[in-house]
Amino acid sequence: MASKENLLSIFALGGINEIGKNMYVVQYADELVIIDCGAKFPDESLLGIDLIIPDITYLQENEDKIRALIVTHGHEDHIGGIPYFLKKVNVPIYATNFTLGLIELKLTEHRLLGDSQLSQIDSNSNLSFGDMNITFFKTSHSIPDCLGIVIETPQGNVVHTGDFKFDLTPVNQQYADIHKMAEIGRNGVLALLSESTNAERPGSTPSELLVGDQLEEAFLRAKRKVFVSTFASNVNRVQQVVHAAIKTQRKLALLGRSMVNVVDVAMSRGYVQIPEGMLIEGHEVGLYPADKVAILCTGSQGEPMAALSRLSTNGYRDVEVHPEDTVIIAASPIPGNERSVSRIVDNLFALGAKVVYGASSKTGMHVSGHGYQEDLKLMLTLMKPKYFIPIHGEYRMLHLHQLLAESVGVAEGHTFIIKNGDVVDIEQGSARVTRKILSGDTYVDGNGIGDVGNVVLRDRRQLSEDGMLVIVITISKSDKKMISGPDTITRGFVFVKDAEELLSSVNELAQTTVNTLLEADIHSWNIIKQSIKKEVGQFLFQHTKRKPMILPIIIEI
Amino acid sequence: MASKENLLSIFALGGINEIGKNMYVVQYADELVIIDCGAKFPDESLLGIDLIIPDITYLQENEDKIRALIVTHGHEDHIGGIPYFLKKVNVPIYATNFTLGLIELKLTEHRLLGDSQLSQIDSNSNLSFGDMNITFFKTSHSIPDCLGIVIETPQGNVVHTGDFKFDLTPVNQQYADIHKMAEIGRNGVLALLSESTNAERPGSTPSELLVGDQLEEAFLRAKRKVFVSTFASNVNRVQQVVHAAIKTQRKLALLGRSMVNVVDVAMSRGYVQIPEGMLIEGHEVGLYPADKVAILCTGSQGEPMAALSRLSTNGYRDVEVHPEDTVIIAASPIPGNERSVSRIVDNLFALGAKVVYGASSKTGMHVSGHGYQEDLKLMLTLMKPKYFIPIHGEYRMLHLHQLLAESVGVAEGHTFIIKNGDVVDIEQGSARVTRKILSGDTYVDGNGIGDVGNVVLRDRRQLSEDGMLVIVITISKSDKKMISGPDTITRGFVFVKDAEELLSSVNELAQTTVNTLLEADIHSWNIIKQSIKKEVGQFLFQHTKRKPMILPIIIEI
Repeated sequence: MASKENLLSIFALGGINEIGKNMYVVQYADELVIIDCGAKFPDESLLGIDLIIPDITYLQENEDKIRALIVTHGHEDHIGGIPYFLKKVNVPIYATNFTLGLIELKLTEHRLLGDSQLSQIDSNSNLSFGDMNITFFKTSHSIPDCLGIVIETPQGNVVHTGDFKFDLTPVNQQYADIHKMAEIGRNGVLALLSESTNAERPGSTPSELLVGDQLEEAFLRAKRKVFVSTFASNVNRVQQVVHAAIKTQRKLALLGRSMVNVVDVAMSRGYVQIPEGMLIEGHEVGLYPADKVAILCTGSQGEPMAALSRLSTNGYRDVEVHPEDTVIIAASPIPGNERSVSRIVDNLFALGAKVVYGASSKTGMHVSGHGYQEDLKLMLTLMKPKYFIPIHGEYRMLHLHQLLAESVGVAEGHTFIIKNGDVVDIEQGSARVTRKILSGDTYVDGNGIGDVGNVVLRDRRQLSEDGMLVIVITISKSDKKMISGPDTITRGFVFVKDAEELLSSVNELAQTTVNTLLEADIHSWNIIKQSIKKEVGQFLFQHTKRKPMILPIIIEI
Repeated sequence: MASKENLLSIFALGGINEIGKNMYVVQYADELVIIDCGAKFPDESLLGIDLIIPDITYLQENEDKIRALIVTHGHEDHIGGIPYFLKKVNVPIYATNFTLGLIELKLTEHRLLGDSQLSQIDSNSNLSFGDMNITFFKTSHSIPDCLGIVIETPQGNVVHTGDFKFDLTPVNQQYADIHKMAEIGRNGVLALLSESTNAERPGSTPSELLVGDQLEEAFLRAKRKVFVSTFASNVNRVQQVVHAAIKTQRKLALLGRSMVNVVDVAMSRGYVQIPEGMLIEGHEVGLYPADKVAILCTGSQGEPMAALSRLSTNGYRDVEVHPEDTVIIAASPIPGNERSVSRIVDNLFALGAKVVYGASSKTGMHVSGHGYQEDLKLMLTLMKPKYFIPIHGEYRMLHLHQLLAESVGVAEGHTFIIKNGDVVDIEQGSARVTRKILSGDTYVDGNGIGDVGNVVLRDRRQLSEDGMLVIVITISKSDKKMISGPDTITRGFVFVKDAEELLSSVNELAQTTVNTLLEADIHSWNIIKQSIKKEVGQFLFQHTKRKPMILPIIIEI
């Protein structure tokens, strides 16, 4: 867009009306900074898609204006899009120590680390780009080293909370800068972008410390091996597992690639303390008495290839689950994952394990990293923003967050529930939404970024429902007569051996259809194909109530 | 199986390690009765499958021994398989008045009502088949007119609970026969089959009456139209909606085919009372002031074609959702449906409605129809069974139900956690599981029952992930040379216009592959096809990291 002097613009390229692929942009005149670059996992309707990232057309077109990508923390929905983004636009990236560690892991995997420009910041850093001055504040969340961001502009200050809860008894000293937040609020906030994940939940988020207490209890009660499955990035919870293992004199094995990698990053950067000699390899688990080992593993969301799922069917090479072992799933299933997690719990019980999981533990072995309603109100109260833009949530969460904001004093009409791509323009202290930039979902499928669109997905959907039927017909160039075929091949429609009669009727029908047209001197291959599709399609629907994709192929010789 | 005198056998053809397709069999010597005949909805891995029903091979082979199908209540997971079963085996069906009404609806739809043998029973009925004498007791559940079953045999009495909770303040006088249950227990129960759905949940199930109180409050607060979406078969809840509407002088419209049909059955059989003149048609809603109408609709599980989903995008012909209307979702999402329900809530909020749903209401506008742990323990205590077979649940529920049973006195070793098909044989008062009969899932897809199996599903899965590529080659019969092709057609793999280069490389590769083989005098079409698959498959995976299904077709002329 043509940039205008003194114009402050705020918009999202991802993160609105969704949980995932967070990407926000603050632009002042001719300079812009990007906040986060996340990815999102597809739901089951996006057949074959591996990952969704934001459409970055606007950023590619305005590459010269980009000053920085600032990353609030290291969760996938905030860093997962970075490798794909860097392939198109190589921007300087600013993040804290631990977040950088996770970004480096990712860039190494994509072989992009060498060319990237990474700078480490902390909550005391100060960045300046033209008229924008940027400072930070610490927040508590379910991963260490999280930042909120203050962007000072001549129009006023814009605050982005990152993901947060208020945890007054955090693990590993991950205290939020409440006094600094109060000061930011006192200095005046023109616009607040605050996350909305738990806007539906009344009360305050419980402290991570509660999980530690429960873990310790479970470890003390356990008579044999203890398995704990949780998010690898929840380093503070990992630390609590370490504490519980120390307390019960257990060695600790890490299972699953991301658990090993992330704990490695956390240890080397000082975010988790594990006594020397405590960690053992998976294949060493069997060397210790069962009441002297604990295992920390991936797969708490029921991912079929992760450690927990393989353990639950005793399909893990090095470690077995035995009767009377304890398995703790220290995570809540993300909506959509309930069934896979339940299946794992079933299998673990069938192996004779004592399973501690969501439905079975009173307070749960999990607390959320996102603030509940009272946390959100506290943030709004501290910041006292003139304008409020709820972010990071589905529509109902944004809507309920607006009601919370109004309940603590944000003026009516001063909350903007935007869509991805909607631009909030602020000029002379006054905000409005009148324009839109291009935004959307870009699908990653294998090596392809953005090459699978609606046509391909529609075909996949039809193929997945009822399969397909190829009908090949050879027609002579010279006399326009059918010289071979129809040859029929089908997949995913019926089991061929059970359906010989049906398929031979299809052959006959296709033959009659083609011959009738050819005899009527109709030689448009297109018309012939359409007729085959229609006739065969109707016939099959009548007989099977299914609609396979029908692909007529005409070979002219 | 060869029947043995005095042998009592109990087994499940569905309902164990799953929620759905309940079907249990009790056989004494040469006679057997079936309890329930349910269906199950497929999860997202069963592409294109409409419904799952039990494998009934055993029953077909033992048709002469079947004396009755007794149906405990009218939920889909207990009656949904009946039409498919009756097409194979026409057995006499016994059920209560309301249950029969729902079965008749279903049979009418499948045009099977004329030939079916339906008999109405109630909790005082007594059926006798040879040495089996069968009596009943009333239970409370989320649908009216539910039965538990007592099968008296010379070996002892077998009790099947049906689905139940204990609701001491039920709506519409749907009291359970607690005194009768106590008497049954006092008379001695050899084996108890009890449902396990809520074995994970501590405490007692709240009474349906709570929902009524909440509904009434919401109706009183509402300033404009009130929509309530719930299960059509939850007639007692429908009755409470009617009460709330009466209290606030509202007319009531019913939206959605199953709501209209089921309420019609319930009214005509006396299970719901609606004052004359209160019901209006959907198209009449607009004729009344907004605070004088309520709408009861289907779709509380987020089903995309049901009324609520269409209302949420204002895609319903007769009725619109306006700002300040109230929409109450009086149901919990069944695991797997959370995301679809959330999407509907988002859309309703976007229309300006006040939405009352799971996360937003303190106690919820829903209570379960299945007993929690204390309810299950009460049933076990009343029945005092010698042997216990937990049914109607996934493995973890059966397992936890066993622990509950042992906590109230069922002896260790006397609980049988079976699989579908496992037979519990009882002889001389002693039970054991040593044999298995055929059981499994039969898939319904369109008109086909059981014709879609693993091969077809595997193909659908591959097609759904990465689509497919057909390569047609014509080879001359006489000189074994390629005379046409390769012609390539692809669907669901790449967008053809974006991938012209890739596809022309595929063509070249296929051509080289075929020519090389032909020149080497290899004329086995099978070898040629396999080579094309392998070469093209490797090439495509290398370039796209995708694995489309590759279908080489050779036409010989």
